[in-house]
Amino acid sequence: MALEPRLLANAIRALSMDAVQAANSGHPGMPMGMADVATILFTEYLKFDPADPDWHDRDRFVLSAGHGSMLIYSLLHLTGYAHPTMEEIRNFRQTGSPCAGHPENFMLKGVEATTGPLGQGFAMAVGMAIAERHLNAVFGDDLVDHRTWVISGDGDLMEGVNHEAVGLAGHLQLGRLNVLWDNNKITIDGATDLSTSEDIPGRYRACGWHVVSCDGHDFADIRRAMDEAIADPRPSLVDCRTIIGWGAPNKQGTSATHGAALGPDEVAAARENLGWSSAPFEIPEEIVRTWRQTGSRGSEAHEIWRARLAASGQRSEFVRRMEGRIPEGAGLGDYLTGLAANPQKVATRRASELALGAINASLPETLGGSADLTGSNNTKTKDQKPLTKEDYSGRYIYYGIREFGMAAAMNGMALHGGVIPYGGTFLVFSDYCRPAIRLSALQNARVVYVMTHDSIGLGEDGPTHQPIEHVMSLRMIPNLAVYRPADAVETAECWALALERQDGPSLLALTRQNLPQFRDQVSENFSARGAYRVRSASASRRIVLIATGSEVEVALATAADLEGQGIGADVVSMPCWSLFDAQERAYRDDILPEHALRVSIEAGTTMGWERYVGPTGLRIGIDRFGASAPAEQLFERFGFTAQAIVPQIVAALKTAGDQ
Amino acid sequence: MALEPRLLANAIRALSMDAVQAANSGHPGMPMGMADVATILFTEYLKFDPADPDWHDRDRFVLSAGHGSMLIYSLLHLTGYAHPTMEEIRNFRQTGSPCAGHPENFMLKGVEATTGPLGQGFAMAVGMAIAERHLNAVFGDDLVDHRTWVISGDGDLMEGVNHEAVGLAGHLQLGRLNVLWDNNKITIDGATDLSTSEDIPGRYRACGWHVVSCDGHDFADIRRAMDEAIADPRPSLVDCRTIIGWGAPNKQGTSATHGAALGPDEVAAARENLGWSSAPFEIPEEIVRTWRQTGSRGSEAHEIWRARLAASGQRSEFVRRMEGRIPEGAGLGDYLTGLAANPQKVATRRASELALGAINASLPETLGGSADLTGSNNTKTKDQKPLTKEDYSGRYIYYGIREFGMAAAMNGMALHGGVIPYGGTFLVFSDYCRPAIRLSALQNARVVYVMTHDSIGLGEDGPTHQPIEHVMSLRMIPNLAVYRPADAVETAECWALALERQDGPSLLALTRQNLPQFRDQVSENFSARGAYRVRSASASRRIVLIATGSEVEVALATAADLEGQGIGADVVSMPCWSLFDAQERAYRDDILPEHALRVSIEAGTTMGWERYVGPTGLRIGIDRFGASAPAEQLFERFGFTAQAIVPQIVAALKTAGDQ
Repeated sequence: MALEPRLLANAIRALSMDAVQAANSGHPGMPMGMADVATILFTEYLKFDPADPDWHDRDRFVLSAGHGSMLIYSLLHLTGYAHPTMEEIRNFRQTGSPCAGHPENFMLKGVEATTGPLGQGFAMAVGMAIAERHLNAVFGDDLVDHRTWVISGDGDLMEGVNHEAVGLAGHLQLGRLNVLWDNNKITIDGATDLSTSEDIPGRYRACGWHVVSCDGHDFADIRRAMDEAIADPRPSLVDCRTIIGWGAPNKQGTSATHGAALGPDEVAAARENLGWSSAPFEIPEEIVRTWRQTGSRGSEAHEIWRARLAASGQRSEFVRRMEGRIPEGAGLGDYLTGLAANPQKVATRRASELALGAINASLPETLGGSADLTGSNNTKTKDQKPLTKEDYSGRYIYYGIREFGMAAAMNGMALHGGVIPYGGTFLVFSDYCRPAIRLSALQNARVVYVMTHDSIGLGEDGPTHQPIEHVMSLRMIPNLAVYRPADAVETAECWALALERQDGPSLLALTRQNLPQFRDQVSENFSARGAYRVRSASASRRIVLIATGSEVEVALATAADLEGQGIGADVVSMPCWSLFDAQERAYRDDILPEHALRVSIEAGTTMGWERYVGPTGLRIGIDRFGASAPAEQLFERFGFTAQAIVPQIVAALKTAGDQ
Repeated sequence: MALEPRLLANAIRALSMDAVQAANSGHPGMPMGMADVATILFTEYLKFDPADPDWHDRDRFVLSAGHGSMLIYSLLHLTGYAHPTMEEIRNFRQTGSPCAGHPENFMLKGVEATTGPLGQGFAMAVGMAIAERHLNAVFGDDLVDHRTWVISGDGDLMEGVNHEAVGLAGHLQLGRLNVLWDNNKITIDGATDLSTSEDIPGRYRACGWHVVSCDGHDFADIRRAMDEAIADPRPSLVDCRTIIGWGAPNKQGTSATHGAALGPDEVAAARENLGWSSAPFEIPEEIVRTWRQTGSRGSEAHEIWRARLAASGQRSEFVRRMEGRIPEGAGLGDYLTGLAANPQKVATRRASELALGAINASLPETLGGSADLTGSNNTKTKDQKPLTKEDYSGRYIYYGIREFGMAAAMNGMALHGGVIPYGGTFLVFSDYCRPAIRLSALQNARVVYVMTHDSIGLGEDGPTHQPIEHVMSLRMIPNLAVYRPADAVETAECWALALERQDGPSLLALTRQNLPQFRDQVSENFSARGAYRVRSASASRRIVLIATGSEVEVALATAADLEGQGIGADVVSMPCWSLFDAQERAYRDDILPEHALRVSIEAGTTMGWERYVGPTGLRIGIDRFGASAPAEQLFERFGFTAQAIVPQIVAALKTAGDQ
């Protein structure tokens, strides 16, 4: 490098303080504090090619402390990515700029993960590092051989999910994972000692990590620490002792630089202090040139890798997997045909296991797991070896009692590409990983959540374990496909839809208890419609029962009873609201005709069902916490029986008739 | 004690395996493994009085590994609590028995917390220990001087929230907190080394804890470890090396004993092995007598404490606080009068701070805090000193970046009694603490969540920080009161309601951005109605606009515009759905008349608003993730302006008229 790293780093500092100042909003302290470390990382260590940000074998870099977004925007711009342009940086945090408040992977190439919700960037990086080792084990060093680098702040390390991520990475000995900890001893509220007294290196060592310290403003020391991190076979925490807002003479080292513009006076003082004479958003030509040269450092390695790929016998399979293409129907065709011929009365969690048998056999990219509920979530198929530190080629991960860590790791795997992660826990514990489920949706990540024990139907474990509001509240997360299949056929259909969906997550809500298989036609994936008629009224249609999951069985019994009284009743199974809402109007009107009395039956909150039953309809559900008792007793107690439902419908018909 | 502790412990083992066997459901392994430790704790260390389970100065015992619920049921029965009776134990996990699958504090006295969702019992115990030290600092050793004991399993320790709880307890040096870790090296999926390689004592020590080990089946060694734990000024982790299912000769030490009945053969073998010849649910008289004697051990100490209380000058205030009684209006009367005279155009987060000024001055029991967003959540009032390890009398806690840990600790404080905890974070991070919010609701705990930055109105921080589905999804949690006040007056009203509510949690969703104060009448708490008319149509009423929070301002502008066109429009502010739903029919029909076109305006998901606007109404909201830009631009872009809304209403009126 022709120029001192400090000069290069100061370009980051100038851009960061100027962009935050222009927006009058943002976080200058972190980019200014970590500019020196980031400069060494990007100019000397990180493997990447700005000309092809999607290079499959690039190092992954995750800015877990996402509020310091100007750091990554500066780096991408300076190293020569097509975006962000200087104009886009100038419009930091404004409408239309990809330089959002926090880095968003769907806005900019080179941003590997959407970060900002603390702790999750780090935990996603663990998933990326798992995916790397797994693919390395499958495809070899020639095609997959890269590192995962993370910049984390104190907030990342204090969040609970950090414990789960650190534990998982230590257990799997992910030596390719290196975390640069911005140890500036400052949080929003003030000095870290206001709220924590932890010996962080001690904690990491106790979890099987290698820890090394450096002065985050001494370039030789930074290099030494990074070299040690790379050399050590364990995952590494690099404790970078830094000064937040380094360069701003009157505010550096204080929380005043964390989350607000420095102000024009301090920006001027920092310019003076740094010897930075350029106008805002102008970078001296020589500095730009040097940065661009370092950016082109990776192109040669990329060229060599391209040649290896071209020569590889695994080329087409590797590219298929990295591009996330799967065969139509997800390999479930024969299995479904078999189900039609040989119906299964099983719990949908078991139906999911059966479907996974076919899926895992035909899709080598699935990577399953459970947060210590393997036997309950039915997530492991016979052919799956565990993925361990001794054998990364395994396709099943024992995540431990780490729901959030599992979900975040799955996001990282999906973002890395080459694998399709799925993982299980109880539906009620979707709350534990909800922040990561939301990030799956925001990041368009193909992650499949297998959430079993999906209602009071789980029985004796009681209200702490019985979902009430969960299915409905998950439906509200934008871009999340929530499925509640009603039998073995629907379960397989929903699995196919989940896997075929390349641009977002899916969640399967599955029963503990057995359900009869009512579907025998498998020629079309009816679940893809979101809702469809399972049974047509034989008498003139006066009632439409809309049910999901285990309550379709109840709806069928209710319809039979009503028909016995001469009241025509359809039964509609609605495994997926969002897919139904996406159907054309005529289809929706046909399935849910306005003239009929519509009745929803779902063993969860009734809030929200007004959408489909209207103001005159009935909503059969449960709007209180459950109770501990055998499932059949609970279904009876809370009114999920034809016996309990039919009189309500008859009364409602009478009221409607009277009016 | 006349009998060997082993005999006493075997009574727990027998009850546990027999009750699980009878239910054919449950977790025998943990109670059998920890029976020896629990026997020593309850017979020799724990301060309690079965004759008065609510004794304010009792030690708190939390069974964090709640799946082992038969342990606590056995202990309560054996030591002489009125419940559970043997009949109730016989009906373990059955309808009508208080012996639910997991221990529920609302079912049984002596169960201090509802546990089962792993990690949370431990984290609640941290809150109890904080409340104890705080009240000790306020009321002195004479009235408050007790310990908090916890039994935790490996799952508790692996959960992310454990890291937050351990960090907080270590930072605050809660020496009265002793955790007995059931170190049996088994999880549901198998041996712990399937999923973890952590040096747990090392991690605890790094977080400022004292750690001591013992053989969990050697009574002298258990005593030695407990004595050390008590003597050490730090919080203690007692590493009890145990054998899961101890006593069941063929299954002990394996995950087979964890979550299923042992089966009749193994129960018989265990009887043989333990030398336990009694029939199921029968305990030899001598053993019962000895257990009861140990149960009465606390009555003398209780008597002495009663005398101290009677003699104390602080008696009535202490009792008032422990019973959770507060003055009507929560001390906000004068403040509200002041607001009426001197309206404030402030963000509702700032209005909350203003209200807290009055509240904290008149209610000494409030104990505030924030998860490192003090200046953003506006949760700290000037008079609040921090609660620190040097001074537990402080009334403000710097929780650090530990949202879940904060929420769980607040549950523990509320369950302990004597304090009313409130704590802040961004609304979007309600996802991080959602599992604890649910437990606040289930446990009827008076906790107040102060959740600011409640919509896209937070602006530049972008979609990771902008709630969309949050307010609505929180409304679905049973027994949680969700408030979204619209101005300074409503904010104070909602605070009063939250504090007056003794039997459940409340959550305030507050804006970052300023809002005009539209209320000048403060003679009645209109928010208590859930919804009320803010503005009546002057022309004939054709439209009812229903808005919450910051969108009431938008609704008022929309109504003004409509009225300008001769279209009569009401504006209804709806700060709390659940309170509105609880109003009598006539009131609800008056506020939301069916003949009017109803329009909801809320900067969140539209899913759910069908409830109030019906099938012909309009739902103005946002059903996608937000974006990074200044708030005003986002409100305009996403259509939260009168300009954008009025034409939709006019068009809807026309459609309705055409039909």
